[in-house]
Amino acid sequence: MANGEEVSNKQVLFKDYIVGFPKASDMVLSTGTMRLKAAEGSEAIVVKNLYLSCDPYMRLRMTKPDRPSYFLPFTPGSVITGRGVAKVVDSNHPNFKEGDLVVGFTGWEEYSLITMTDMLRKIEHTDVPLSYYTGILGMPGLTAYAGFYEVCSPKKGETVFISAASGAVGQLVGQFAKLMGCYVVGSAGSKEKVDLLKNKFGFDEAFNYKEEDDLDAALRRYFPEGIDIYFENVGGKMLDAVLLNMKVNGRISVCGLISQYNLEKPEAVQNLFCLISKQIRMEGFMVSKYNHLYPKFVDFIIPLIKEGKISYVEDTVEGLDKAPGALIGLFSGRNVGKQVVVVGRE
Amino acid sequence: MANGEEVSNKQVLFKDYIVGFPKASDMVLSTGTMRLKAAEGSEAIVVKNLYLSCDPYMRLRMTKPDRPSYFLPFTPGSVITGRGVAKVVDSNHPNFKEGDLVVGFTGWEEYSLITMTDMLRKIEHTDVPLSYYTGILGMPGLTAYAGFYEVCSPKKGETVFISAASGAVGQLVGQFAKLMGCYVVGSAGSKEKVDLLKNKFGFDEAFNYKEEDDLDAALRRYFPEGIDIYFENVGGKMLDAVLLNMKVNGRISVCGLISQYNLEKPEAVQNLFCLISKQIRMEGFMVSKYNHLYPKFVDFIIPLIKEGKISYVEDTVEGLDKAPGALIGLFSGRNVGKQVVVVGRE
Repeated sequence: MANGEEVSNKQVLFKDYIVGFPKASDMVLSTGTMRLKAAEGSEAIVVKNLYLSCDPYMRLRMTKPDRPSYFLPFTPGSVITGRGVAKVVDSNHPNFKEGDLVVGFTGWEEYSLITMTDMLRKIEHTDVPLSYYTGILGMPGLTAYAGFYEVCSPKKGETVFISAASGAVGQLVGQFAKLMGCYVVGSAGSKEKVDLLKNKFGFDEAFNYKEEDDLDAALRRYFPEGIDIYFENVGGKMLDAVLLNMKVNGRISVCGLISQYNLEKPEAVQNLFCLISKQIRMEGFMVSKYNHLYPKFVDFIIPLIKEGKISYVEDTVEGLDKAPGALIGLFSGRNVGKQVVVVGRE
Repeated sequence: MANGEEVSNKQVLFKDYIVGFPKASDMVLSTGTMRLKAAEGSEAIVVKNLYLSCDPYMRLRMTKPDRPSYFLPFTPGSVITGRGVAKVVDSNHPNFKEGDLVVGFTGWEEYSLITMTDMLRKIEHTDVPLSYYTGILGMPGLTAYAGFYEVCSPKKGETVFISAASGAVGQLVGQFAKLMGCYVVGSAGSKEKVDLLKNKFGFDEAFNYKEEDDLDAALRRYFPEGIDIYFENVGGKMLDAVLLNMKVNGRISVCGLISQYNLEKPEAVQNLFCLISKQIRMEGFMVSKYNHLYPKFVDFIIPLIKEGKISYVEDTVEGLDKAPGALIGLFSGRNVGKQVVVVGRE
């Protein structure tokens, strides 16, 4: 298309704030038009979206906040926003030019006008799959890197447990822990995922939490001596079982609590007394705190990808009309690996 | 009495493991006899007990453990053990001689034979009230010192909230925080305690949690900008309310969970999602990890005591027959300040 041309623009709109599990019908497809031209005098850019990232935290943006929240809520009637990979179509910004590939905050639509350009990063390495910038080379990758190396203070030989271990972040944490010489066990919600953990990602052990009546007993089976590090992605009953099985001086990095995001009343955790008797450090974190580490992370991860020392599994759907289903699938564990929506490939 | 003499020895025995709130009748008074002579060839010592410490963690020793526990359970039918101040009556140990004053693990009885002498420390400074070695100069003092300065990473001007704030540890944490130039608020369970916090310990604000229907609202009132540091002594509903009111990068030092110790099923905490969105570090600790700091702590605290820059309130009962009631009083908040049992004064 020509720069400045008016084109039709398919979009995914957020209907209204919800309570409980999200449904695909909480989002609606719409088609508008858009002129592929950033207004003169602004520093805005216009992009064509290629890959959109489905992330669990997006559920938090669907809830009407009852007090100021770190997560900016979606605006009812407006386009869903999130992280994605896009190609610059027109730019008034000195740092971006037509044809550049960028990663950062964009819209769930074919074309986006982006004014918050400080949330965008130009993609330098293009000899890897571009979709990786929604996952291993994007926010989930940096989350796994900072959450494991910075928050968990891991040491060789320690025992590491990861929940939601085949997800966008968990699969990387497990591989990082194996590279460091840790004993690594993961939990996931299907046989297919458990097989991935053991056979593709090299976890020492893995189990399907849905098949365990007694999570405490399951953890005792895999960690007879206890857990040094827990990388927490789910919360609720799993956290309670883990607390009972932590070692003295254990560390819990709280990355996500996906089991809780759709509950009107969060599930309660009962075993916090273990924090004292086992002198556990439990630390919540958000990747934004570690954005400054991104260049260091890229230098670390690109060689591992190129040498085949690390794997990354993505679950892709094609087309914006599949986007609502892909997002809500995260909460039933439908996705196997990082969930990506392909809007276009170039 | 003469060294080697056989004397009568009043004791407080632990009856049997309990569930729920402890009662005075879970302990029984008994009188035996004891020869005031440490056996030749041993490194044991015999002491006359002077001041016994009532500490919340002792409740944990009354529960039959269902898995290996850090807290050694009491032995049914045997004397209650705990921290106390005592005078050496006879010694075969090179580090202790007759007449020495010691602090450490002893028995709830008039005289004790102590074989675990590595849990004892000789008292050097005797120009302060000896009972202080059960409190400000003992385990609670070091707990407050390490729990605040080492675990909370406090900075001048930060906002600090302390629960059970007039207790053995809380009253010190509040005063340490004021010395550092923090804004300090405490909660306690009576008007008398709230007055102490504001008028004796110099807290900026204090409130009676029993008079607040909505703890979240109470905390918002005292911390409109949020809490940087929470020194956790109680757990349960208070922790849930605090989590909602923490600032980003807040720290929670988990020292005790006294509201939970008597519950068969611990009260659940629901708001752990705040750990992530506010990037909170929550760390449980036990003072034993910081025993090496004791000499440094004494050098810090003795001048503050002597210059009147720090206050310490004790609640004393006289006689071993009052000991069971004093211990269980901790769990209804009957005590005002550090609970001490006076067995003898010299």
